Amino acid sequence: MSLVSIPEKNWVTVPVDISFPGQDSPSTDLVAEEQPLELRFHGKPASVLMRTPGHDRELALGFLFHEEIITSVDQVQSIDRPDKEGCLGEPADNILEIQLDTPSRMKGLDRFFFSTSSCGACGKKSLESVTVHGPMVQGDFMVTYSLLGTLTDRLLPHQVLFHQTGGVHACGLFTPQGDLVCLREDVGRHNAFDKLAGFALIHRLHPLSANILLLSGRVGYEMAQKAIVSGIPMIVAVGAPTSLAVELCEKWGITLVGFLRGKKMNIYTHPKRVRTG
Amino acid sequence: MSLVSIPEKNWVTVPVDISFPGQDSPSTDLVAEEQPLELRFHGKPASVLMRTPGHDRELALGFLFHEEIITSVDQVQSIDRPDKEGCLGEPADNILEIQLDTPSRMKGLDRFFFSTSSCGACGKKSLESVTVHGPMVQGDFMVTYSLLGTLTDRLLPHQVLFHQTGGVHACGLFTPQGDLVCLREDVGRHNAFDKLAGFALIHRLHPLSANILLLSGRVGYEMAQKAIVSGIPMIVAVGAPTSLAVELCEKWGITLVGFLRGKKMNIYTHPKRVRTG
Repeated sequence: MSLVSIPEKNWVTVPVDISFPGQDSPSTDLVAEEQPLELRFHGKPASVLMRTPGHDRELALGFLFHEEIITSVDQVQSIDRPDKEGCLGEPADNILEIQLDTPSRMKGLDRFFFSTSSCGACGKKSLESVTVHGPMVQGDFMVTYSLLGTLTDRLLPHQVLFHQTGGVHACGLFTPQGDLVCLREDVGRHNAFDKLAGFALIHRLHPLSANILLLSGRVGYEMAQKAIVSGIPMIVAVGAPTSLAVELCEKWGITLVGFLRGKKMNIYTHPKRVRTG
Repeated sequence: MSLVSIPEKNWVTVPVDISFPGQDSPSTDLVAEEQPLELRFHGKPASVLMRTPGHDRELALGFLFHEEIITSVDQVQSIDRPDKEGCLGEPADNILEIQLDTPSRMKGLDRFFFSTSSCGACGKKSLESVTVHGPMVQGDFMVTYSLLGTLTDRLLPHQVLFHQTGGVHACGLFTPQGDLVCLREDVGRHNAFDKLAGFALIHRLHPLSANILLLSGRVGYEMAQKAIVSGIPMIVAVGAPTSLAVELCEKWGITLVGFLRGKKMNIYTHPKRVRTG
């Protein structure tokens, strides 16, 4: 796979005055921008995502896909900015107008809501509705411990927004050979994954059964659920997993690696895809 | 304030088998438990929170308070486990039945939804509805840089779940003298804050205008919004703030400290409450 997508300068930092000990006059710091993105379906506001601006169409597509509202980019007729600002003065840059192919798909939108920057698998009201459905994740590649140990070093040089602000999560898609396919950064880790999935949808890469997902943070229920929907057979995280993430990955056949620090790591589920070397 | 609440062993870790490089046989790791908590109002399921079990009543109370459904613990008639498991076999431990004082308060619940472990200020569908309302936050105490520099060391010994799993966020409430009032840990940082606010509600400590909030992670829109509702005049975070958090704290009069590392820190807004010494 020769396709590589590293974000250009299409995200935003905000300079703010700061004080700190031992310095009389204020200095300046860059912080990652967080802005609400309103998703409107056929003219009707349905959801607000708190996100870092940039790759908004990818975010909307990936969100719809991971929420199982769409299964292909062909089911979306159009995603556009409105012609003018919202009726309360909301900037058009924070709004996306989405047209789906058929009104029946809108049924899934009933459970939409406000989604925060850390929030992905949403809109459910009862315990039964949080249950994940779907087939086992496929993917029979094998990688070495040594290769996994190099992944963060391969991603880090490209995490430009992180280097500037220290305040965003990164999500990287790799081949089993360790080649970077796509990187996305966002104040919300679920947004970063949704943007990455949106990229994959546009380039028709799904299911991502020959890919490794590298996460800069922890792995909870929502990230595991999104990985199942995207068909990703291996999650490698710098942070810790939750019990529910371990449970989901065990059940759906995903290799879950956590606490990746240099060459050290814990493999929580399906170690069959990792061999010595 | 002599009231101190450190969690007893009322949260859960889960042992899982893991593999790692250089070891033939699997070892065991403890991961933080994540479980869905279904909130039912007058018998009707309204929301699911992905949380670490423990302090569930505090979580429900703090969530309702931060969502501005209630302003006092007196507006909740009862919070109980159901007598038996849910109709689909959901364990009663993952369900809370809540009775509010008046049906009119239920109007605010229309925007409820599935809330993830990272998710707090939720249920809004349009940009206008994410706007925070409310009075300026009051609180005229002053603290020294040196005192702020000691806060993480004061919290760390009590972060038992973090020490065991490395996979949870902590939220600590301090007096301006640096005394710990309450600590809560959870896989979701918003849950940790909601649990803490629930504790404060039960003990009628609101508004928390004489307190410092210490966060183990970053500060985004939702954490700042919750702090405004709880009336907290100073947020001190180990991680980075987002642009929207800086904006909200500036506007509502909250002192926002980020990147607290030892004696180093950035003060993003209202440095008037911090003096040399």
